Amino acid sequence: MKKLINTPESVLEDALAGVAAAHPELTVDIPNRVITRTVRPDAPKVALISGGGSGHEPLHGGFVGRGMLDAACPGEVFTSPVPDQMLAAAKAVDSGAGVVFVVKNYTGDVMNFELAAELAAEEGVEVRTVLVNDDVAVEDSTWTAGRRGTGATVLVEKTAGALAERGAPLDEVAALGERVNAASRSFAIALTAATVPAVGRPGFDLPEDEIEVGVGIHGEPGRRREKLRPARELAAEVVETILADHHLTPGDEVIALLNGLGGTPLMELYIAYGEVAARLAQHGITVARSLVGNYVTSLDMAGFSLTLTKADAQLLELWDAPVDTPALKRA
Amino acid sequence: MKKLINTPESVLEDALAGVAAAHPELTVDIPNRVITRTVRPDAPKVALISGGGSGHEPLHGGFVGRGMLDAACPGEVFTSPVPDQMLAAAKAVDSGAGVVFVVKNYTGDVMNFELAAELAAEEGVEVRTVLVNDDVAVEDSTWTAGRRGTGATVLVEKTAGALAERGAPLDEVAALGERVNAASRSFAIALTAATVPAVGRPGFDLPEDEIEVGVGIHGEPGRRREKLRPARELAAEVVETILADHHLTPGDEVIALLNGLGGTPLMELYIAYGEVAARLAQHGITVARSLVGNYVTSLDMAGFSLTLTKADAQLLELWDAPVDTPALKRA
Repeated sequence: MKKLINTPESVLEDALAGVAAAHPELTVDIPNRVITRTVRPDAPKVALISGGGSGHEPLHGGFVGRGMLDAACPGEVFTSPVPDQMLAAAKAVDSGAGVVFVVKNYTGDVMNFELAAELAAEEGVEVRTVLVNDDVAVEDSTWTAGRRGTGATVLVEKTAGALAERGAPLDEVAALGERVNAASRSFAIALTAATVPAVGRPGFDLPEDEIEVGVGIHGEPGRRREKLRPARELAAEVVETILADHHLTPGDEVIALLNGLGGTPLMELYIAYGEVAARLAQHGITVARSLVGNYVTSLDMAGFSLTLTKADAQLLELWDAPVDTPALKRA
Repeated sequence: MKKLINTPESVLEDALAGVAAAHPELTVDIPNRVITRTVRPDAPKVALISGGGSGHEPLHGGFVGRGMLDAACPGEVFTSPVPDQMLAAAKAVDSGAGVVFVVKNYTGDVMNFELAAELAAEEGVEVRTVLVNDDVAVEDSTWTAGRRGTGATVLVEKTAGALAERGAPLDEVAALGERVNAASRSFAIALTAATVPAVGRPGFDLPEDEIEVGVGIHGEPGRRREKLRPARELAAEVVETILADHHLTPGDEVIALLNGLGGTPLMELYIAYGEVAARLAQHGITVARSLVGNYVTSLDMAGFSLTLTKADAQLLELWDAPVDTPALKRA
């Protein structure tokens, strides 16, 4: 295993120390493993909190800031954070307007966020939970009952974050998050597996000429293995798989996230995006907004995911709203 | 070779198609291989143009936009663009105030940009050239006489771009670029080699437990090979190597760019940055600003580079100035 780490045991703590050093605009509570905004909102507002296993950076800590998250709770690599972290985060950022937990659908995350919501309620913090389950690849998976939560998390956090920033009430922010999740579908292809530091070897073995179609962000198995093919064909397969589930019709507008899984060069992500855009155009679907880059990664996994969110005027306006986080900025 | 491409021959054209589809704010002239801003500056201003081989994305196309570059000329992978591209770019963006070429010090790039400057002068475009040569690793290298140009390019393009945006005259913008380059030093360590699509295999062989210390962004050999060590030790070596050349003294302020070479997860880059920041603090050097992420990549190479630019009030102010490009945004 070749990794830029000190020890497999200290990766989370060491990474948080780096985040703290790099981002004075974030406050990193290393013992409690909670990342919050250094400058708190001027007025009471609904607080958005997310979290999950580490190894998906910039998700979630990189999305803490004005217009997006109020706090993030990073777990160990590919491991759910614990309820105490989420409770500490909720207490740290609740202004009395309540808290929305944005939870990717993995069994551990769901259970821990549920427990945290109960604990928070006992301490007088009102909590709503938005469950993200956008991955159309498989119905159940290694660590999930139902569909996995992946790229749509970025869209939920961005749009719900923008709405919260404007002072919308708790139920409205949560409802928007649920609506964005329902309007989103994702699908991923891996060219290589990720190596978790504590494991020391790739999560699965993939022959030199094969890919994993429908892979999860922890390397969970997808639908099948196939031979590696040109980007045009892979993009077409990803688009067709999403459209088969998404009921988009010609004339519809989407927000498209072409997401790198960590080990794929940006040049290749642009190649894939060009093919995705061309394929969508053949279907008469307009990409109203797009985002290309590494946003929901899986350590050093090579590959990409595509998320398509059906857009409307409200979602586009919230997507375009100002945001100031390490990983996503908009004036 | 596992790559998300159509064919090795079409990677540049296919990537440019993707950039065009993803970024309406950029205008991509695919036949001429020139990327410009879609919305041109309101008033005449000095135009900043850069370029070089592809495979280093987001450099340079990702830095085209208000507050940074006016145009980028991407060559084939790890191959200089040609003078006709640069001439086309100069003619496209010159507003009469002149053009600054930002050139990384590689023999092919230097020669081609020189020729382009002569051609542009013949057509009445006044050109200045800023040569970036910040890599302290080796004096001469595979494709370079003198020091290689790497991470400092981002700092030159950002600060000179900000100055140009304010209407500073040609000589002043070029002088600022030269000053930033002179104030900058970089050093890189690779854990793995990049694979150029047209070659189909890694650029060098590195045993599973070895690293290349002082590597160039095209995989040029560095100073030596060593055993892989903890991030703390690698960060210390990089910092000490730069400081041995840079004559920084306690109390000095720097802008630090902790740059991923493409294949290293962001989590690991933060680990490395935390160690770099701690080491600099031991020397009494203050990191006034930092940037952590993939900015000057080498396809899928795993590893990182560190660039330290000695800061002063003017450089910090220009670094903080608004910028709106795909890869770097600031309100």
